Amino acid sequence: MNILITGGAGFIGSHVATFHLERGDEVVAVDDLSTGNPANVEAFKSHPRFRFVHADLLAWPGLAGAAKVADRIYHLAAVVGMFRVLKDPVRITKVNVGATEALLEAVATSGHLPQVVIASSSSVYGRSEAKELGEEDDVVFTPHDGGLTGYGLSKLVNEIQAHAYRESFGLPVAVARLFNAAGPRQTGTYGFVVPRFVDEAVKGKPLTVYGDGRQTRSFCDVRDTVAALDLLAGCRAAYGVPVNVGTTREISILDLAKLVIERTGSNSEITFVPFDEAYGAHFEHIMRRRPVVRRLQELTGFRPRFTLENTIDDLVSSHRPAPLHAHA
Amino acid sequence: MNILITGGAGFIGSHVATFHLERGDEVVAVDDLSTGNPANVEAFKSHPRFRFVHADLLAWPGLAGAAKVADRIYHLAAVVGMFRVLKDPVRITKVNVGATEALLEAVATSGHLPQVVIASSSSVYGRSEAKELGEEDDVVFTPHDGGLTGYGLSKLVNEIQAHAYRESFGLPVAVARLFNAAGPRQTGTYGFVVPRFVDEAVKGKPLTVYGDGRQTRSFCDVRDTVAALDLLAGCRAAYGVPVNVGTTREISILDLAKLVIERTGSNSEITFVPFDEAYGAHFEHIMRRRPVVRRLQELTGFRPRFTLENTIDDLVSSHRPAPLHAHA
Repeated sequence: MNILITGGAGFIGSHVATFHLERGDEVVAVDDLSTGNPANVEAFKSHPRFRFVHADLLAWPGLAGAAKVADRIYHLAAVVGMFRVLKDPVRITKVNVGATEALLEAVATSGHLPQVVIASSSSVYGRSEAKELGEEDDVVFTPHDGGLTGYGLSKLVNEIQAHAYRESFGLPVAVARLFNAAGPRQTGTYGFVVPRFVDEAVKGKPLTVYGDGRQTRSFCDVRDTVAALDLLAGCRAAYGVPVNVGTTREISILDLAKLVIERTGSNSEITFVPFDEAYGAHFEHIMRRRPVVRRLQELTGFRPRFTLENTIDDLVSSHRPAPLHAHA
Repeated sequence: MNILITGGAGFIGSHVATFHLERGDEVVAVDDLSTGNPANVEAFKSHPRFRFVHADLLAWPGLAGAAKVADRIYHLAAVVGMFRVLKDPVRITKVNVGATEALLEAVATSGHLPQVVIASSSSVYGRSEAKELGEEDDVVFTPHDGGLTGYGLSKLVNEIQAHAYRESFGLPVAVARLFNAAGPRQTGTYGFVVPRFVDEAVKGKPLTVYGDGRQTRSFCDVRDTVAALDLLAGCRAAYGVPVNVGTTREISILDLAKLVIERTGSNSEITFVPFDEAYGAHFEHIMRRRPVVRRLQELTGFRPRFTLENTIDDLVSSHRPAPLHAHA
């Protein structure tokens, strides 16, 4: 298969690339490297079936041509991570909505029907703190509480766009609402909590927990996320409707901190910082984010292969002092 | 002043044009005529201070130049009206989000700071049926219930865009959440209820009420809407935050039908059609849409000048069989 990955140098995108290269596919990864990191694709940058394109999707002259030859497109390019989102609110809509528009339009006018996977996010549930989050549930937003509402809305609009292009052009578009992917190559730079804890634990620094740490998350190993995306891409019944992608195991952030300390054998301490003193703590303010995954299971038979302990262990391995040939 | 009106041949846009021409300003109205109607600007198309540009905002080469010379911009261009919205879901995001992006970007790079008014909508409240709708309230959406969620979300994203450009570039952008404007020149073609009732009453046809007609609306005369937009445009304290624009008088759709029959002296009957049999009844399914207008009043001192009876009477006058010189 010919695979196109937008945001291909990002955390999830690079794992999608790995997955398809291992399966024998041809992979083109396009990334503007605003969040994506060349180090993510370092390992296979000279792979004969891999090509990296450094471009902003909105200005990439190759988009139409790439859409024409792709058998499958993973659209992962987005302004992500709480720091980015808060720092540059103008770009959220421009990139997250604009680039998705450009991509779907390119596909709709390509003359063929590649499978498309659009990455949505648990952020579409807004400030809902229901015990479980199901795809048919109402979503609740507090407008104007900063860029985070903008992020969730931009992803909700992506779903609307996917649905509209499915309806109007019959595009085979799957919509994956990603819940807290975590795993090797993820960094804490943009505010993601698992790699941040691992980084702090490995360095023997205190693990910073926002609030009292009782807020819970359900983490999904990125390799499971990628397997689910692959299944959704080929699942006709999934097209046009959002599907939660994640796991149902819930862990409090405090317990996560303890677990990371345990798995790393660190003697780091845990410190608590009130939400209102923590720039960037906004995402973690939400008390829970647990998906209902019935739809994903029924549509695709998906079952996760990795436990959170696996994820942490592998993240630790990938996080230890870099070997000599590592990227500068 | 140099005034630029996007969607200038639309119902509200043409009233904005009238308002500013009467005040002695120069007016440029740009409209792709997808919803806008040349008949709306017929009366002043040869006015020396009026210029009409037939263009799609997203493809208008004159946009940057127009942004450079404008003292004030009313951005009213959008895919509106329930029929349009349901018929062409792809265009909602493309036009409503994309054109707003293009406009704000043109202003941000224009080298000066014209006042900008962005038309948002009561649709941003989604399916909230609170007794009163205040600007700080949470909003609730049911994703994927068709194009209407898309419409409300697109307007919510417009607010996010306005806020972001205000924050990042200091643009003087006012955001008006318009509640059910009604008045002369409005047509029922796109599903608006007051002109539809007037049309049915004038023709002696039955007035069709969806559901039991107990759902309420708060109508605002378009000339009051326009006066409020003018006040907001010049109100520094309003920039970047959404402001409800409407009136608090509530009337049920059934009482509206009776009032229209009374004011027109029609002998039309009233018929009831269940919501689920009525294509296009979706907007009316919402049980109430009453704005809190405190913010508008406190910021601008605005008070409405027209009653609903005035609105209906003037709509009837403009709706009676056209005089000889009317547009074909």
